[in-house]
Amino acid sequence: MNYDLKSIPSRTDKPRNSGFTMAMDKGLSLREVEDFIEVSGDYVDIVKLGWATSFVTKNLRKKIDIYRAAGIPVYLGGTLFEAFVIRDQFDDYVRLLEEYQLEFAEVSDGSITLDHNKKCKYIETMAKKVTVLSEVGSKDAAKIIPPYKWIDQMQKELNAGAWKVIGESREGGTVGLFRDSGEVRQGLVEEILTQIPEEKIIWEAPQKEQQVWFIKLLGSNVNLGNIAPNEIIPLETLRLGLRGDTFDFFLNL
Amino acid sequence: MNYDLKSIPSRTDKPRNSGFTMAMDKGLSLREVEDFIEVSGDYVDIVKLGWATSFVTKNLRKKIDIYRAAGIPVYLGGTLFEAFVIRDQFDDYVRLLEEYQLEFAEVSDGSITLDHNKKCKYIETMAKKVTVLSEVGSKDAAKIIPPYKWIDQMQKELNAGAWKVIGESREGGTVGLFRDSGEVRQGLVEEILTQIPEEKIIWEAPQKEQQVWFIKLLGSNVNLGNIAPNEIIPLETLRLGLRGDTFDFFLNL
Amino acid sequence: MNYDLKSIPSRTDKPRNSGFTMAMDKGLSLREVEDFIEVSGDYVDIVKLGWATSFVTKNLRKKIDIYRAAGIPVYLGGTLFEAFVIRDQFDDYVRLLEEYQLEFAEVSDGSITLDHNKKCKYIETMAKKVTVLSEVGSKDAAKIIPPYKWIDQMQKELNAGAWKVIGESREGGTVGLFRDSGEVRQGLVEEILTQIPEEKIIWEAPQKEQQVWFIKLLGSNVNLGNIAPNEIIPLETLRLGLRGDTFDFFLNL
Repeated sequence: MNYDLKSIPSRTDKPRNSGFTMAMDKGLSLREVEDFIEVSGDYVDIVKLGWATSFVTKNLRKKIDIYRAAGIPVYLGGTLFEAFVIRDQFDDYVRLLEEYQLEFAEVSDGSITLDHNKKCKYIETMAKKVTVLSEVGSKDAAKIIPPYKWIDQMQKELNAGAWKVIGESREGGTVGLFRDSGEVRQGLVEEILTQIPEEKIIWEAPQKEQQVWFIKLLGSNVNLGNIAPNEIIPLETLRLGLRGDTFDFFLNL
Repeated sequence: MNYDLKSIPSRTDKPRNSGFTMAMDKGLSLREVEDFIEVSGDYVDIVKLGWATSFVTKNLRKKIDIYRAAGIPVYLGGTLFEAFVIRDQFDDYVRLLEEYQLEFAEVSDGSITLDHNKKCKYIETMAKKVTVLSEVGSKDAAKIIPPYKWIDQMQKELNAGAWKVIGESREGGTVGLFRDSGEVRQGLVEEILTQIPEEKIIWEAPQKEQQVWFIKLLGSNVNLGNIAPNEIIPLETLRLGLRGDTFDFFLNL
Repeated sequence: MNYDLKSIPSRTDKPRNSGFTMAMDKGLSLREVEDFIEVSGDYVDIVKLGWATSFVTKNLRKKIDIYRAAGIPVYLGGTLFEAFVIRDQFDDYVRLLEEYQLEFAEVSDGSITLDHNKKCKYIETMAKKVTVLSEVGSKDAAKIIPPYKWIDQMQKELNAGAWKVIGESREGGTVGLFRDSGEVRQGLVEEILTQIPEEKIIWEAPQKEQQVWFIKLLGSNVNLGNIAPNEIIPLETLRLGLRGDTFDFFLNL
């Protein structure tokens, strides 16, 4: 840190198991990736190339290399996994991960209908090769999954070998964990936490108010995801009680 | 593309007559232009320097040159044309286009009241020198133009020599083709399409939901405009059915 | 300017006392700072490193140096001042300003409760060393300060040595001068202006509609703050009547 301030909440260090931040890159240039790492590299644990943007991204290999050289692993959005699966190209997907030497992969069913046993089978298969992040929740605002099902799926996916499970929100933060308005489905989150260990979950929370809500519920070292590159520094200040929204909260501890 | 996926909707190639994407640059630096071209150059057909931002933009000539060297023509926002016309400086405007060797120009009346015959006269005059994009629709949310008038104006402007006509939305997507809420005026769009060939229209559609709506109505190769530089890659994935919003749509074809 | 347009409202030049623009940097990289200066340097009078982002910003000294070399002073957000004060580390804060040779500083009480006499004491103390910007208004949307109190505090803070007073809005523009919807508290602004000289106030106005409202009330050379880096060029066009929103307004003068 650039100067000393007393009573700052303590943060975990890399490699982080909790206090983890996943950023979403939806099309940065190589130079923008360098800039992003300069500014936020210490605070980002993993980068997702959002949904299937990697299909049309220029210099994909170089981009992944730049992140890797900075100690930040990259994975491909779950929608891409689904695009391969729905086309019966799962083997091609596995080859793709190998070709780019990716160490993490997402298994999700946000846009496709996938029997949950099959989903767990994919997790099991992939977990032999890479670290699997599995995602629960639909990208369709109309498909409301009841809390007991979230819990059941999360447990089974962790049992199948997922390293952590991700709670879906999309880039905008308006589905899955959230209502269309962006408001947190508080009852859902609280019920999930009665059954699933907190450090096993990454909450997608792109909007500031959502980040604040999770930090107030679970503290500085909550795992958060789908953070835009230019919101990593602001998020870090929220985690440290150094922005208006969480300023009081940590002082009152 | 970086890897093979089956059954991806086919996209037109440059120089595109349909499937055309117009991006809006409202003040990128030269280096940011280079980054933008690196990432999105293949998917951008033309760049508009938004409204009259070119008046205060540094390194205007260099900026235009960088785009041109990448095969992306630049044109100046219609508001600038109107700013010259309302000041009785149309000749200066023509000289400006010559000075910067611009090959495209917009003729619009979104902020001024311009007799429609006069507007067509401007189109006719300018079409002798440059490729003209003419724009229909007011920037004033209170000025609702009925569908038959949109059609009448579009037809006359194409007859006067406009290469394509643009449907107004502003940077935000809240006027012209859209309600203040950003919702598409569906009846308007559908009525226009009964009379004006689809490939002659560029729909300004800065919001994701608006892009999705047009892609679902007219397919991958609809002409869209006012796309922010960092939304070109996301738009391309929408066109290809590789984002949640259009994932199902193209699979069901 | 890149070309001649008649009847453009005249703008003040640097160093500006009115027509002043304060930009908010919430985590730009060094290269992004250079790009920002290339594009908008002439139109930015001062840069605030938002709230306490400077705590976690990499290359803080270099960043400040790049801005300084371009003639743009930097100051640290008021929340940081408050973070030091609430921890009883005011002396450390003063040393910090010295260490980074900052010539401007903000005194605020947006996140803490601070007796107003004490706040004025801080202003007085700091005004001996630096140029003080003091801020009025709470970051808490629920704390409504009545107009007579805004005026009283502004007067006392100017008397205590503040160079200018800032009207609070936060990054989003949804508190202080504005309702949660972003709408201006017009009565508040108008009442303030009956007592406080216009050039002594910087209005935080991050949203375009807010900027337009102030420009229409006070003209091209109103002092505005909390402008995002990529909104400086758009704001300059609003000030010059070269964007739809203010196009008519200046023509009717």
